[in-house]
Amino acid sequence: MNIAILFGGSSFEHEISIVSAITMKKVLKKSTLTYIFVSPQREFYLIETEKMNSKLFSSGEYKKSKPLTLKQGGFFTEGMFGSKKVANDVVLNLIHGRDGEDGKIASLMEFFSVPFISPRLEASALSYNKLYTKFLAESLGVKTVDYIHLSKEDERNIEMAYPLIVKPVRLGSSIGVSIVKEASELDYALDVAFEFDNDVIIEPFIAGVKEYNQAGCLTDRWELSIVEEPQKEAFLDFEKKYMDFSRDAQVLSADISDSLKEKIQQSFKKIYHPLFQGSIIRCDFFVVGDEVLLNEINPIPGSMANYLFSDFEEMLIRLSKQLPKEKNITVDYTYIHSIQQAKGKV
Amino acid sequence: MNIAILFGGSSFEHEISIVSAITMKKVLKKSTLTYIFVSPQREFYLIETEKMNSKLFSSGEYKKSKPLTLKQGGFFTEGMFGSKKVANDVVLNLIHGRDGEDGKIASLMEFFSVPFISPRLEASALSYNKLYTKFLAESLGVKTVDYIHLSKEDERNIEMAYPLIVKPVRLGSSIGVSIVKEASELDYALDVAFEFDNDVIIEPFIAGVKEYNQAGCLTDRWELSIVEEPQKEAFLDFEKKYMDFSRDAQVLSADISDSLKEKIQQSFKKIYHPLFQGSIIRCDFFVVGDEVLLNEINPIPGSMANYLFSDFEEMLIRLSKQLPKEKNITVDYTYIHSIQQAKGKV
Repeated sequence: MNIAILFGGSSFEHEISIVSAITMKKVLKKSTLTYIFVSPQREFYLIETEKMNSKLFSSGEYKKSKPLTLKQGGFFTEGMFGSKKVANDVVLNLIHGRDGEDGKIASLMEFFSVPFISPRLEASALSYNKLYTKFLAESLGVKTVDYIHLSKEDERNIEMAYPLIVKPVRLGSSIGVSIVKEASELDYALDVAFEFDNDVIIEPFIAGVKEYNQAGCLTDRWELSIVEEPQKEAFLDFEKKYMDFSRDAQVLSADISDSLKEKIQQSFKKIYHPLFQGSIIRCDFFVVGDEVLLNEINPIPGSMANYLFSDFEEMLIRLSKQLPKEKNITVDYTYIHSIQQAKGKV
Repeated sequence: MNIAILFGGSSFEHEISIVSAITMKKVLKKSTLTYIFVSPQREFYLIETEKMNSKLFSSGEYKKSKPLTLKQGGFFTEGMFGSKKVANDVVLNLIHGRDGEDGKIASLMEFFSVPFISPRLEASALSYNKLYTKFLAESLGVKTVDYIHLSKEDERNIEMAYPLIVKPVRLGSSIGVSIVKEASELDYALDVAFEFDNDVIIEPFIAGVKEYNQAGCLTDRWELSIVEEPQKEAFLDFEKKYMDFSRDAQVLSADISDSLKEKIQQSFKKIYHPLFQGSIIRCDFFVVGDEVLLNEINPIPGSMANYLFSDFEEMLIRLSKQLPKEKNITVDYTYIHSIQQAKGKV
């Protein structure tokens, strides 16, 4: 199978997307890989697989690669003798953060009829926004941590016990996130978060909370990863998460009871189906007492959370054969014809 | 000003988008108009303004027009001597239903850095879906009509008094909507709705409810239309709505008290700001007792609800100067550089 890996993008996580994309070389060994880079200026380039290393991008050398145009049916190179389609069976959207996770890439792929692995438009728009994720979870009967939503212009009148955690609603990878131990630190933390977003959510910071990650997808069957208990310090900072995105070695299953595992998996399925069809996502859960709370949805997890699955590549191939199809809409101009008949000409 | 009107699309409302686009010729008299058609197959064509009539599309003649490619910075014609950008100052997204209202066109415009008038991605994804519209309204303190959400696979166990109204969550223009007078009719109405969508909402049908429409936008000031009391029968069927999309004559203000008008306008502003910045939307409200309930958001109303404004064209020009700007993200490869230093080469 020929898998086109779409990476880069105009995103704070542009660089970790490059790391994720390079990691795929080690993970997808049986497939042919076609690398398509989205530059920070959002131009498309076809990158030769043997040239895929981080320096190609940091040096700006990538600009010598073939530019691509996105047109109906796929990506094309343009040459003297017309345009030529770049061959691939499916696009794997590996753009973290803006463009990739907010629904723009999903929109582009759907509009231009390119088969792709990624959350679709609606799933992206909801999961990219931590506030909308709360609405979604609530509507599906999945509990989340309490929160307060604050917009930039709102009064900073927060009634919640400390310590708190302040998060911009729309960014991933801990960017702009602060833990606030006491009231005197709150203003600064909010200023930082509002640098990145016009909306923040504030949640109680639960020290030592048990955290578990569950990744998976639905192909012709449910394909759920092992449940991982991520190592953590207070929380992962950007550089640590960055290194985390190059993981390719399998990890151990968390040591939890069958009933807790079952609860986590049920919550995952509720979130995933049917909104996230066509994607591999990772949900991060907190366990407080015997309650499983959704912390966040990673619609495009670092290196696709490949290290949580026993045969990631085969799963990806099965998924690429089970992508959701857009409803076909036939336009036959019935109404225009009938109006033309009724009144001559519009 | 040169306004590019983007219309058509792969949508059940493709034809009414053509009617809306033709209507703009009568409404935008001072501006230069550039018509860009999105065919049912989602290919772009540049349509000469003098050729803009419904027959061009119903006959398929439009296929002889110049094809366009969407690239970074705008729409381009491709010729012997390279590609040439189609001149325009702003794109007015006039695609009703799928593509235009669901966030795909917004994504395309934002990704390719084209200034455009339309709800942005998030606003589109939320308002295109009647269930998510409920979440949004709730979070903003705007009341809506009670509802039950039902998915295709759910048991049809509806506890609500008749008559009901059944609506697919994702379509506009009354497509797939039924009023259900008694239990024996419910199954058929659900079957019809599920033909169009995997999710429906069911609401009490409030016979004779007072309905008021408020359109508007935020430029350098609030620009609110008159409040209209739409004429209605049980509800407008597709053909009547269709004719409605070609309206260009101003209508009369509804005869309501100042305090009701104030309530409607406050609700409109809560919905609009800041999510819908950059767009002209119409909100349809029900008034029950002294409560104002949001019925639906029309993110791209028929003929842009021009007939509700005293000088639509001047407002459009002011709006085009107040479009929300995407946050600029600088990618400087700091992390890749630091990793390269730390470990040689990734």
